[in-house]
Amino acid sequence: MSSMTMDRLDGLEALLFDTWGTVVDWRSSVLDELGALSARRSLNLDCEKFLTEWRAAYKPGIEKVIGGEWPWTPVSEIYRRALRSLAPRYGMESLTEAELEHLNRAWTRTRPWPDSVKGLTRLKRRYVLSPLSNGDFRWLTDIARFAGLPFDCIITAENARHYKPDPEAYLTALELLGCPADRVMLVAAHNYDLRAARTLGLATAFVARPLEFGPRQTTDLRAEEHWDIIAGDLEDLATQLGGN
Amino acid sequence: MSSMTMDRLDGLEALLFDTWGTVVDWRSSVLDELGALSARRSLNLDCEKFLTEWRAAYKPGIEKVIGGEWPWTPVSEIYRRALRSLAPRYGMESLTEAELEHLNRAWTRTRPWPDSVKGLTRLKRRYVLSPLSNGDFRWLTDIARFAGLPFDCIITAENARHYKPDPEAYLTALELLGCPADRVMLVAAHNYDLRAARTLGLATAFVARPLEFGPRQTTDLRAEEHWDIIAGDLEDLATQLGGN
Repeated sequence: MSSMTMDRLDGLEALLFDTWGTVVDWRSSVLDELGALSARRSLNLDCEKFLTEWRAAYKPGIEKVIGGEWPWTPVSEIYRRALRSLAPRYGMESLTEAELEHLNRAWTRTRPWPDSVKGLTRLKRRYVLSPLSNGDFRWLTDIARFAGLPFDCIITAENARHYKPDPEAYLTALELLGCPADRVMLVAAHNYDLRAARTLGLATAFVARPLEFGPRQTTDLRAEEHWDIIAGDLEDLATQLGGN
Repeated sequence: MSSMTMDRLDGLEALLFDTWGTVVDWRSSVLDELGALSARRSLNLDCEKFLTEWRAAYKPGIEKVIGGEWPWTPVSEIYRRALRSLAPRYGMESLTEAELEHLNRAWTRTRPWPDSVKGLTRLKRRYVLSPLSNGDFRWLTDIARFAGLPFDCIITAENARHYKPDPEAYLTALELLGCPADRVMLVAAHNYDLRAARTLGLATAFVARPLEFGPRQTTDLRAEEHWDIIAGDLEDLATQLGGN
């Protein structure tokens, strides 16, 4: 990182974190829940296949909202609809409504990556920390509780009723933080997210999470631009930002 | 508290806390800052008189927003305007813009009441905790950081751009929490706030803070209705809700 970058980052007040993938390991967490459910209810589920299909509903769902084809629809509802449509195809007809709803909330029972809590705890000493996720406000609140993430507040796309990478999602976060863009950094494992943030003047940090989608992941394996910081994990980010 | 009340409270998921007065002792905290500033800059300030006048700007300010006379105006700006108008009358012309801005943020450097952190920590084991304050979102985030309040998320009137007791302030909180009204309790030291919450179906807890406005306080000395819980402080609230 150049000294010019560090000068620019001297005025940072707040860090916004993409959360699924960047801070928490949703895949192994949801896989574990699916495996336990399958065993308990003798479903003989192909958990990886099921999760891949379920997760695949996310992108087209938020794109329909972004494109105006759907009205504002929370991610919880996108996953709920997908779950209801997948369940009969995977022999899950025996599950009750309450069991499906509990399973849908598996997206909130996601473990942090091994470095996340330590890294956030170090960063919190100097910066205001918040998620900036496309997930429901309540879901992010529950993720923070479940994973013990020391966020100072919760901000999500729901506060703007616009999904990232729509500018409104980032701009609403800046407004709530009471900060100009250059005092805020987006931390994300996804290049598209950082691209949108940089366009609006936010500082950017890429955190490599090459296992987010499992061992055969092909996307976001590396930084695709010269982001202000490129970090191996959140502890490395704290170190590069000069924290102890 | 009757057993019917306790049955009704069995389904509680989340607690919303009025914050200034209910959770933090703004008066003694801001008085201390004014005293230190006065000594440091030889202002010979009548701190109590100054603070009484400064605080008096709050109610007419939010009422102008509620009544539609002013567009949405954050509390930080209401206090900023009042400070600028008071400063010359109190011989504070020597203060720089930066010093005035720092002083304005004294409202975020407010100490918790002695029971607040312990009470919240106990309540957090069972419930999602959030402020529901008329203060700026960022100010409440800073208050939580300064006072070490273990909130799970931050919700303020700014999220609704409507001040309490407008229904929108409470309804936006319910929407963000993803909860029906009867699963959420408002905790406040102010009867007017609880009245508005009860009208919308929220559970209510009154916490007595008879020294919020100093030893000569005449308002909100006691519960004016049969709120679901009437508590001496936040530890008592945790005890009455059955927490350890």
